[in-house]
Amino acid sequence: MTNQPATKLDTRAQLPPMFARYKSRVEQGLIQAVAQRDTPPNEADSLYVSIKYHLGWVDQTGSPATDAITQGKALRPTLCLFACEALSESVEQASSVAAALELIHNFSLIHDDIQDQDRERRHQPTVWCVWGVPKALVAGNALQSVGDLALLNTNKEGTSPEVTLKVSQLLTASYLEMIEGQCMDLAFESEVYITAAQYLNMIACKTGALFRSGLEIGASVATADAADVDAFSRFGSNIGRAFQIRDDYLGIWGDTATSGKAAGNDIRRRKKSFPVVFALEQANGAALDDLTRIYQQEELDDKDVDRVLDILDELGSKEQSDKIAEASAEEAVESLKGVSLPDWAREEAEDLVDFLAHREY
Amino acid sequence: MTNQPATKLDTRAQLPPMFARYKSRVEQGLIQAVAQRDTPPNEADSLYVSIKYHLGWVDQTGSPATDAITQGKALRPTLCLFACEALSESVEQASSVAAALELIHNFSLIHDDIQDQDRERRHQPTVWCVWGVPKALVAGNALQSVGDLALLNTNKEGTSPEVTLKVSQLLTASYLEMIEGQCMDLAFESEVYITAAQYLNMIACKTGALFRSGLEIGASVATADAADVDAFSRFGSNIGRAFQIRDDYLGIWGDTATSGKAAGNDIRRRKKSFPVVFALEQANGAALDDLTRIYQQEELDDKDVDRVLDILDELGSKEQSDKIAEASAEEAVESLKGVSLPDWAREEAEDLVDFLAHREY
Repeated sequence: MTNQPATKLDTRAQLPPMFARYKSRVEQGLIQAVAQRDTPPNEADSLYVSIKYHLGWVDQTGSPATDAITQGKALRPTLCLFACEALSESVEQASSVAAALELIHNFSLIHDDIQDQDRERRHQPTVWCVWGVPKALVAGNALQSVGDLALLNTNKEGTSPEVTLKVSQLLTASYLEMIEGQCMDLAFESEVYITAAQYLNMIACKTGALFRSGLEIGASVATADAADVDAFSRFGSNIGRAFQIRDDYLGIWGDTATSGKAAGNDIRRRKKSFPVVFALEQANGAALDDLTRIYQQEELDDKDVDRVLDILDELGSKEQSDKIAEASAEEAVESLKGVSLPDWAREEAEDLVDFLAHREY
Repeated sequence: MTNQPATKLDTRAQLPPMFARYKSRVEQGLIQAVAQRDTPPNEADSLYVSIKYHLGWVDQTGSPATDAITQGKALRPTLCLFACEALSESVEQASSVAAALELIHNFSLIHDDIQDQDRERRHQPTVWCVWGVPKALVAGNALQSVGDLALLNTNKEGTSPEVTLKVSQLLTASYLEMIEGQCMDLAFESEVYITAAQYLNMIACKTGALFRSGLEIGASVATADAADVDAFSRFGSNIGRAFQIRDDYLGIWGDTATSGKAAGNDIRRRKKSFPVVFALEQANGAALDDLTRIYQQEELDDKDVDRVLDILDELGSKEQSDKIAEASAEEAVESLKGVSLPDWAREEAEDLVDFLAHREY
């Protein structure tokens, strides 16, 4: 990997090699799952245009998209396929399951954008921005069902009904947990003080659940060994935390060009991400007064954003975020210690953890 | 059944007896499914307050509700349990499945209210009206997952993994169809002319799919006989159409006190329900000009509503709605002809069809 400055188009090059290895398999799975429903001779077709637009395949008119960077990293399906290959040296049996994970993650993104009134994602207008809230709501729901169906139909590809049912239960329970996390997150918005512990519990649900179940599901289709599945489950929880804390970091200190998000964006939006929660917990005197006052305002101006950035700097929010991401990364590696894995898999797991905890986008 | 004028509190008395017979079983199933998740010592608890509020169990503060009329008819689970009992003389095995159907129907209602900006349902403020759009969106998603989990977990109650998986596939496919129907419905809003055939195709998805799958699922847990399952599936499609056309009728000509909806409400909201679609297809001259003009306005006043009512009257929209509901009812009864059923079941099926096609609320 080269170390040249990242530009909009070469960021993907920094991903660990497993992303490239599984990329076309994930895409095939997604295309197949969506194509199973996208055959209406009727008025529902604009539904699938909005879904394919969100997935980065077409533009707003339904014509094929040319700029592949608008697609996501396919993180969750990659994790799922990795767990499956690490335990069984084969990925075939996890293809549909991996696609389902990505579809369900994308359903949550479409609804998240409505909730947060976000107008842009991956350098493009969000679905609700293009088609309005009612259609975006329906598109999200449809995407979830397309994902569920992809998963429920895996038994038609040779997976036993027992395993298919088990992974469906795992996935459904985990996205209910994700939803519960979203709900806590919404509740936090109207509160000024949240403890770091409350925040970490919330992201364990909102972000961690789908990371955890992705790895658990990938492991479950590969092996019936409960200890191995459990190890990958803990691995998932830990990398989920590392990922989210790094995401919070990038939302404040990330480079706009690489992350696709505006710098200081999360502060301007008064988002109580980890660095802010930590600062609110640590602050005293003028810093506490200023944070409290600023986070109770309806809107923040440039001066407010600068003041918050100064306070976070003073209180060591950046260092603490790094520390938590680092500790989660170490715990993740530790989780897999007891599992018998081929060398390539252990090395890749460590590279993955390193990437998630230190990525710049 | 008495024929006294219906009041807000005695409408339930007009329901066919199967509703009373299954009522407590459905309620138990719902309570059990929701209770499985509603145990958070955390900030997600307001999520379950909003869900239980929507189900009519608690008020906005979370205190037990006193007025049972705010609960729905539990139509879909009742149909499911009926199919199961008619084919196997037992309902035990369909309890969780029936609860799942009702939960998923209610998820769609919470989201429908957001889409349509409806402020009232069952004489109560809607969830988005009380808690805002973001929380209502999340509550709907959670309710769907609670329903899915209830269904996926039926194998823990003795149903085989194969049958559990089959009914999960049926249900998921049918609510994707329901969502596709909602999408067509949204697309229709921006078009002036829709044919009656397009409209009937839309409601076959939007309303019919869940009726059909409810009966198909109830039949599937009772028997492996494909012809019997198929007969109940066709029965469901037909009563779905009869139900929706009657719903459209009541939305225009229904009695406000019994239906819980404002008279002429669907006209004022420019809803293109069957009577209006039929009138637009039939109209000529001044009637067509007036309908076209009125349905292109942003808002309708009393004079507009009266003019539309007069046109529907002239063109026989009421009679045509009755005719379609009647024909669907007859086809429904016909669908079950080839199935060997006990006398009580055939009689109840006929009473049910009669109720759905002629109900006043």
